[in-house]
Amino acid sequence: MGILVIGSVAFDSVETPFGQVEEVLGGSGTYFSTSASFFTDVRLVAVVGEDFPPEHLEFLRSRGVDLSGVKTAPGRTFRWKGRYGYDLNEAQTLDTQLNVFAAFRPELPTGFEDAEYIFLANIDPELQMEVLRQVRRPRLIACDTMNYWIGGKREALLQTLKSVDTLVINEGETRQLAGEANLVKAARAVLAMGPKTLVVKRGEYGVLMFTEHSVFSAPAYPLESVFDPTGAGDTFAGGFIGYLAATGNLSEHNIRRGIVFGSVMASFTVEDFSLNRLRTLHHDEIQDRFRQIKLLTEFNVEE
Amino acid sequence: MGILVIGSVAFDSVETPFGQVEEVLGGSGTYFSTSASFFTDVRLVAVVGEDFPPEHLEFLRSRGVDLSGVKTAPGRTFRWKGRYGYDLNEAQTLDTQLNVFAAFRPELPTGFEDAEYIFLANIDPELQMEVLRQVRRPRLIACDTMNYWIGGKREALLQTLKSVDTLVINEGETRQLAGEANLVKAARAVLAMGPKTLVVKRGEYGVLMFTEHSVFSAPAYPLESVFDPTGAGDTFAGGFIGYLAATGNLSEHNIRRGIVFGSVMASFTVEDFSLNRLRTLHHDEIQDRFRQIKLLTEFNVEE
Repeated sequence: MGILVIGSVAFDSVETPFGQVEEVLGGSGTYFSTSASFFTDVRLVAVVGEDFPPEHLEFLRSRGVDLSGVKTAPGRTFRWKGRYGYDLNEAQTLDTQLNVFAAFRPELPTGFEDAEYIFLANIDPELQMEVLRQVRRPRLIACDTMNYWIGGKREALLQTLKSVDTLVINEGETRQLAGEANLVKAARAVLAMGPKTLVVKRGEYGVLMFTEHSVFSAPAYPLESVFDPTGAGDTFAGGFIGYLAATGNLSEHNIRRGIVFGSVMASFTVEDFSLNRLRTLHHDEIQDRFRQIKLLTEFNVEE
Repeated sequence: MGILVIGSVAFDSVETPFGQVEEVLGGSGTYFSTSASFFTDVRLVAVVGEDFPPEHLEFLRSRGVDLSGVKTAPGRTFRWKGRYGYDLNEAQTLDTQLNVFAAFRPELPTGFEDAEYIFLANIDPELQMEVLRQVRRPRLIACDTMNYWIGGKREALLQTLKSVDTLVINEGETRQLAGEANLVKAARAVLAMGPKTLVVKRGEYGVLMFTEHSVFSAPAYPLESVFDPTGAGDTFAGGFIGYLAATGNLSEHNIRRGIVFGSVMASFTVEDFSLNRLRTLHHDEIQDRFRQIKLLTEFNVEE
């Protein structure tokens, strides 16, 4: 089965109330791939600069990620710098240097066009469409986006959304995309744009999934120490789509389970800077936290 | 079984993006009693001014609320004025006139001292203690408070909390009371102050319940139109404690169900100004929405 993901590989510099790091491994493609690699095979399409250290590529390779679609281009790797206050739900971007990412045009290596599960991480919607033109008959196309594209490339984004099965965005993006303050109404408007499933990320408040006929609410795992929220959303998507690809089952029951696995993966990522927590994560820890979320949400209709 | 509640009966003036009302029926005691009256008998202890119209008392009486503990005092009824923006999670208080509430000393009528279920709505913690001194052997003491008392009457509040079984407060109050930004750590600190159960209200994000050994997460019912959040917290508490009193069962399973019934009741209150929605509410609507929350949260661990 396996997943094809297009996204960024980056250096992040992050400041939180609990510490700070400089130029650590980051990027949507990195977080997604690493998270999904706990469930299935992953093929990553991305670009890095000449300054990108071989040990980072080695880490992804050790997770079984196929890097034949990762190009090294002349110049520096994409860099992001951000800060979080005690309200860890919102990052303040201090600096963005696109570098080699500015001229990035996704080109799929031979063989990648057969991908059945595709995740288009948060990049220019025109590039997202370019990827879709290169694939044959995917079973599932999932996609992320952000306020920058919703505001600045709305027409291209709406075009992309027509081909997307599952849109994974946050609350503010849902409201902005729909132009509607009420989340339930906004979700309905977004579903009318194309996606059959809308997954709304709400940080520490969990996830709401909307389809035409149903709503599913999954809590975030309540953590005693949230260290750095960077990458939580892409880690969520990696666990979610990774589980769907691994099981090959797109029923709503399975989508709900996938969303919970995504939440579990995100709960680990935020426990440390960069992908550090995922580097030491074991499958039994994932299963254990999945069962804990089950207990967390359980109530019986009758005695 | 039945419940004894001490709280305010008030006139509210409210402005939301969807409309505004002047001097409508409100107050923590009013919302709590009306909500709980769908589950069990309620006895209300409160004070109103000479300007309080008989039809409001008649409404509470029609809901089966015992008003023998509601005094009419010389002067004007308590008044609150507030405004909500599109972010309906936070009210901006424009004006508070305590009026007859300023000199309120709760005095329980004969017979009320046998109360088994007690809810101390958000009033001065010294008055909350005065109520507890007047009751004999309650099975459950639940209580609410607010930033004003957490900051200004901390010692008295900590004294009250030693006698409280179930504390029902919001997220910000939990953090303030514990002096801790992380909610899980804050909850643990609050439990160490006395309550065996802490129920944290998070508005449209639902409720988190903490005990020494478990956490329960209940979503809010996703509404297409939230009209006026005033009274949602007290309505929640009324449904929650009302269900516990009606069933006489304080097991964790039943507490979880009670929390969901509380969420259901709150979801109705916010659909209209004042208690208007509760005036037309039927039991089958409550049961129906309870089942919908069950469907909303359900996922299976295995296929």
